[in-house]
Amino acid sequence: MKPLVYLDHAATSWPKPPEVMQAMQAAMAEAAANPGRGSHQMAVKASRVLFETRRVLSRLFKVSNPNDVVFTHNTTEALNLAIKGLLQEGDYVVATMVEHNSVRRPLEFLRRTLGIKVEYIPVNGQGELDQRRLKEALAKRPKLVVCSHSSNLLGSILPIAEIGKMAHEQGAVFLVDAAQSAGCLEIDVNVMHIDLLAFPGHKGLLGPQGTGGLYISPTIDLEPLMHGGTGSQSEEIEQPAVRPDRYEAGTPNTIGISGLRAGVEKILEISTSRIYQHEWNLTQRIMEGIQDIQGLRILGPDLRKPKTGIVSFVSSEMDSSEIAFRLDREYGIAVRAGMHCTPLAHEAAQTLQTGAVRASVGIDSTIEEAGILVDALKRICGRA
Amino acid sequence: MKPLVYLDHAATSWPKPPEVMQAMQAAMAEAAANPGRGSHQMAVKASRVLFETRRVLSRLFKVSNPNDVVFTHNTTEALNLAIKGLLQEGDYVVATMVEHNSVRRPLEFLRRTLGIKVEYIPVNGQGELDQRRLKEALAKRPKLVVCSHSSNLLGSILPIAEIGKMAHEQGAVFLVDAAQSAGCLEIDVNVMHIDLLAFPGHKGLLGPQGTGGLYISPTIDLEPLMHGGTGSQSEEIEQPAVRPDRYEAGTPNTIGISGLRAGVEKILEISTSRIYQHEWNLTQRIMEGIQDIQGLRILGPDLRKPKTGIVSFVSSEMDSSEIAFRLDREYGIAVRAGMHCTPLAHEAAQTLQTGAVRASVGIDSTIEEAGILVDALKRICGRA
Repeated sequence: MKPLVYLDHAATSWPKPPEVMQAMQAAMAEAAANPGRGSHQMAVKASRVLFETRRVLSRLFKVSNPNDVVFTHNTTEALNLAIKGLLQEGDYVVATMVEHNSVRRPLEFLRRTLGIKVEYIPVNGQGELDQRRLKEALAKRPKLVVCSHSSNLLGSILPIAEIGKMAHEQGAVFLVDAAQSAGCLEIDVNVMHIDLLAFPGHKGLLGPQGTGGLYISPTIDLEPLMHGGTGSQSEEIEQPAVRPDRYEAGTPNTIGISGLRAGVEKILEISTSRIYQHEWNLTQRIMEGIQDIQGLRILGPDLRKPKTGIVSFVSSEMDSSEIAFRLDREYGIAVRAGMHCTPLAHEAAQTLQTGAVRASVGIDSTIEEAGILVDALKRICGRA
Repeated sequence: MKPLVYLDHAATSWPKPPEVMQAMQAAMAEAAANPGRGSHQMAVKASRVLFETRRVLSRLFKVSNPNDVVFTHNTTEALNLAIKGLLQEGDYVVATMVEHNSVRRPLEFLRRTLGIKVEYIPVNGQGELDQRRLKEALAKRPKLVVCSHSSNLLGSILPIAEIGKMAHEQGAVFLVDAAQSAGCLEIDVNVMHIDLLAFPGHKGLLGPQGTGGLYISPTIDLEPLMHGGTGSQSEEIEQPAVRPDRYEAGTPNTIGISGLRAGVEKILEISTSRIYQHEWNLTQRIMEGIQDIQGLRILGPDLRKPKTGIVSFVSSEMDSSEIAFRLDREYGIAVRAGMHCTPLAHEAAQTLQTGAVRASVGIDSTIEEAGILVDALKRICGRA
């Protein structure tokens, strides 16, 4: 049942380090009470699990106060909280064409309901932003600038430090979607002018599904997405102002968050720069191997250009879904075909009609596995 | 570190049946891909985990179509989705004084932002609804009636089948908060006229934290709380209409949901009526044992009246938090003291100033543990 070669890390990293499940088991055995909602020792221990995880995430993202990191179900919730919690009627927002539907759909929802205005800055086929259009848009002083750190289709890396600086110069709030970068690209919320950082727990941070979070700069107040019990100031009809309580109504996923801590500790131990280098080496190996296959076009940055661990491609000879299906059934290689929830990036890559195949590597992927993918693709697409 | 006697099941059940962690480990090993977002076999297996869990939940709540059960992070998210997804400017809502803050705070948020009107029907000290006030309120034809199935402070059981019938006769949508009843009281969404049923995964259903859900009647369309990627109809700017995708944007907690399935299967095997009887026996044992302690007042239904597995009490001689603290530190008994996120129920019980101590039993609690609590309370409060 398990794939021989798992190359769908951009969706969810797998397998997780054994420490992740061990941490989950320990939490289940000893800390699975309801944190912050009881004074008994297991509840206190659950609170400590949450705090320790906030602390390692803060180390990773250079956040000064761990209570500015709040936990969410996934990146989608973090982005919904950031976008819906900040924007008001008539606001103007600048986003990019590589945004995921988890950014685009909340924005389009607010366009429909609150009449916000949204501009998506174009990218070229390499995934590079149109700088002139970006500057023109920023000059209109948006309330919010949203930018994916790395495209989940193209693997291209956006210059978020520069964009953040320009956004701040125009008085905008800067929201970064780190779905594809947390754990493999350096992120420093101060240096990069990031006010809001949405991140998944279950991708590059190696934690389990059901975890993710949002860093919220102390200068920003968002309306919570969830209103409900916090175990603090229960007599008030409003959410308490104190963080993280304000943004974490309801029982948190203590067990999953315990696993996430183990994942983040692994990242801190190895370092994101080593992980980036490892994953980049593998994408280069794959790109070199498949670039000469007839009719096959690799999307995003050219060979030897910076990118995250994603290689997406289309074939003029064969359906993307058929390629993915045959890789899975004939070779035990797990990749993903389709739209990858990012239709605008497909527009930029001119693959809106065809979708694309995406192979994505992770921390434990090997050069042998990259070779197995290359050989399989040569056999599947080579003579088509 | 573990308590000798865990009596905080109303917050989170513990320990979980071993099958729950086993199911989570199996999912982590074999099905931890991203369901519905890839055709490879591990993604297909992840989709199956979700579907199978919807299926057992549907059996439990007598839901005909498993796709009408959607997963959420916790009950709070389910209630936020139901309330915010349904209500519009100026709507009139009827709720009760035993509602948790996860109902009250979303309603008060909409009162502030959309100008909805909310009436909380009073309960008496036994937790019984004021029927006259309820009828008067229903006659005003509310858009929504929200009712907790069982008070998380008093343990009282509300006649939701009757309330649902009356609500439907007035054309209202009926939302039930099953936070304290799922797994220990019979729930039949058809017989009880339930349109929306919010439930936790980690309490009576014995699953891990990070799980919960909402049943949404096929006759109801809610605006999603989360907008984002669904792996379906990715080119659309709106959430797809198809269920469950419409309400499950972002990566779900497949590992946790796998554990939840094992928990629900355990409930189906034992039967909710046996669980109710077991828990009721224990509450009666505790109530009989502590009722004569000087200055101690038990909240909610009298002895021998129906109630869920909760015994809350206050002492005129000693702070609630001190009692809970001493139970924990001196006797290794985990209970909870405070407001329990339900200030209106404290108003009804006249304990808004003092809070209360809550002991809550679970499926594996024993008559010996009930006796240990009674003896400890006699020693702590008896001579105060």
